[in-house]
Amino acid sequence: MADPVRIGLLGRGTVGGALASLLGERAAAVEAATGRRPELAGTLTRGGGDFSEILAHSDVIVELIGGTDPARTYVLDALRAGKPVVTANKQLLAQHGEELFAAAREAGVQLRFEAAVAGVIPVVRTIQESFGVTEIDKVFGIVNGTTNFILSEMAASGAAYEQVLARAQELGYAEADPSEDVNGADAAAKMAILARLAFHTPVTLDQVPFEGIEAIQPDDLAYAKELDLSLKLLGVAERRDGGISVRVFPCFLYSGHPLAPVGGPFNAVMVEAPAITEVTMSGPGAGGVETASAVLGDVVSILSGEAPVHEARERLPLVADVSSSFYLHLEVADRPGVLARIAQVLGEKEISVKSVVQRGIGDDARLVMVVHECLESRFAAAMEEIGRLAELRAAPRSIRVIEEEFV
Amino acid sequence: MADPVRIGLLGRGTVGGALASLLGERAAAVEAATGRRPELAGTLTRGGGDFSEILAHSDVIVELIGGTDPARTYVLDALRAGKPVVTANKQLLAQHGEELFAAAREAGVQLRFEAAVAGVIPVVRTIQESFGVTEIDKVFGIVNGTTNFILSEMAASGAAYEQVLARAQELGYAEADPSEDVNGADAAAKMAILARLAFHTPVTLDQVPFEGIEAIQPDDLAYAKELDLSLKLLGVAERRDGGISVRVFPCFLYSGHPLAPVGGPFNAVMVEAPAITEVTMSGPGAGGVETASAVLGDVVSILSGEAPVHEARERLPLVADVSSSFYLHLEVADRPGVLARIAQVLGEKEISVKSVVQRGIGDDARLVMVVHECLESRFAAAMEEIGRLAELRAAPRSIRVIEEEFV
Repeated sequence: MADPVRIGLLGRGTVGGALASLLGERAAAVEAATGRRPELAGTLTRGGGDFSEILAHSDVIVELIGGTDPARTYVLDALRAGKPVVTANKQLLAQHGEELFAAAREAGVQLRFEAAVAGVIPVVRTIQESFGVTEIDKVFGIVNGTTNFILSEMAASGAAYEQVLARAQELGYAEADPSEDVNGADAAAKMAILARLAFHTPVTLDQVPFEGIEAIQPDDLAYAKELDLSLKLLGVAERRDGGISVRVFPCFLYSGHPLAPVGGPFNAVMVEAPAITEVTMSGPGAGGVETASAVLGDVVSILSGEAPVHEARERLPLVADVSSSFYLHLEVADRPGVLARIAQVLGEKEISVKSVVQRGIGDDARLVMVVHECLESRFAAAMEEIGRLAELRAAPRSIRVIEEEFV
Repeated sequence: MADPVRIGLLGRGTVGGALASLLGERAAAVEAATGRRPELAGTLTRGGGDFSEILAHSDVIVELIGGTDPARTYVLDALRAGKPVVTANKQLLAQHGEELFAAAREAGVQLRFEAAVAGVIPVVRTIQESFGVTEIDKVFGIVNGTTNFILSEMAASGAAYEQVLARAQELGYAEADPSEDVNGADAAAKMAILARLAFHTPVTLDQVPFEGIEAIQPDDLAYAKELDLSLKLLGVAERRDGGISVRVFPCFLYSGHPLAPVGGPFNAVMVEAPAITEVTMSGPGAGGVETASAVLGDVVSILSGEAPVHEARERLPLVADVSSSFYLHLEVADRPGVLARIAQVLGEKEISVKSVVQRGIGDDARLVMVVHECLESRFAAAMEEIGRLAELRAAPRSIRVIEEEFV
């Protein structure tokens, strides 16, 4: 059996705690994917632990303490000691990226940081690996969940910025001191990192001008709605005039824009290049377990080296009869009792109706309904029974519906 | 200088041709990323070339001939000869995946196939690498661009299936024989591959039931619109009842669903898991250069082994003054000539107006407008001038707008 891989964990806040749990839960999966079982070698917290000792006993260092100091020293020491590092620290990378990347290259070890930008959305990997040799024109998107939540709420409720911020703090979407999020500085750090990866040119946080959302007025959002616009805090990194422009600012989008429907605390990033047209990725931008998940993905990549398709380790049965929600289209004689008869068949099969539209056409009527999720075999039986009703003017038609409504 | 990496290309149709061009254009970028310059070792076409000879002179084989035979033999021979393989062949993987994966594992070489599913959207890499140890619940989405184009057009125009199919063929979005696309078989092959990766369990094409879109009626789409539903051909792979369910079927989505706005020939895939909530990825599902781009990304991954951040090889200047479109909010005295005066200032700065909303409130009026893209410095100068107008009741407010309208 291969030796376990020993993880040295620096920092044990929300993400650190979630990672420690995830390492336990997914240990067998990590072993199946990499051949090595992960185990925690030690944890450095504000209250205890010795960095040098943890470093000496670890194969991989995970840095989750945040801030630039002492995180920078720890990461440099680890890389120089030949230990690969995973970090979620956007400030560190946006301010000292080149120094860290150079240290990793010199030591010939990996430095991975998927969790530093856009949480669990694999934007770092996609830009570095999938599009690593693509001539990227533009990377832009919503890279701060706090402000996206606030703007979504302001648009939906008409409430003022201060009120919605207070609500975001209650729900845990905004911190007690939200300034880095709402003034755009957090997004600027992330855009500096993405610009560096997309354009292979050094970009640091102090080169990224940013504006926040503190001055947005509810009536701007109300007027904008009439113009079919929705407001987002955008980070944009793009080629312009032979150079690049990297900025963060609030910005309206028309409703057909791929980023327009991204609401709540979600993040979304678009990458544009002639060879790929555009690719959009969205998902939760933060959250303890989501961020820890991105960190774990990086740990696994470090251990994998390459990416073979692993032997099929499961033999899951393929299930035939599943539950679905359905749209149902019936052409029926327009006379009393038809709807009741159809409803009775559905009721007997324990299929409940979500919505109905009925419209007369001459002696006939069209009955269109959506029914809640039910076992497909049961729905098929109901359809067969309904199809035999004397009132039916044509074979019933049905199409599945995804009932879940997002926002 | 390191030896070049010799690429043996099997097949030179649309994608093969685009790849050959891309290899030339991006050779320097590939060398910067991997240390090795790519060169075409040979091309096997219907008209010429000898497979054994190409294999002998190649470091990597790219299989783009499609179909299962002789593609299967070629890929197996290459892997057994210790040569890594990149393929875009969904039929081959959906029918003979386990055999190929086993051959790759035995030979200790990589088999990569990002381009086989959802074109340039990095869904294979994301599921295998980013979420490689995540307990995935569900992978679903729009994995066939032809049918998505047809359904979008039917919904927009009210035209019948046959008419829209003919139009899709004219535009090159549907093939002369579209049956594999419109009956769901193409999507089923892709879902078999994604299910295999997500659930680590063997899944082959013949285990995936599929329905197509040939029977969809325009009036289903019209009624559905009233119910706030849009129609997609969905592929779904999910855990159900202790097993998995993998299927393809047309399905309605409510307008808030992340897949609802995905129109035209685009693809989109969602991955759901407790540890990541949900991640959505969308982009063009096909196209010669897009597919070739995904193939090239795989070639680079094979050469990279690991993914360091490369030395910053560019020194691009950061551009400060760029062009933007703006929303403009003005509170003005409600008297004749105000709009004219403001329009004059904008005109002098060569800023053109896209839309205006004006509304009276007592003696004052609110003037909200969107102006077309202009240099930001010029817009700022106009704002300053407008701010000095006697008719202004409050400082003008402005917010950037992304003018581009999608769909």
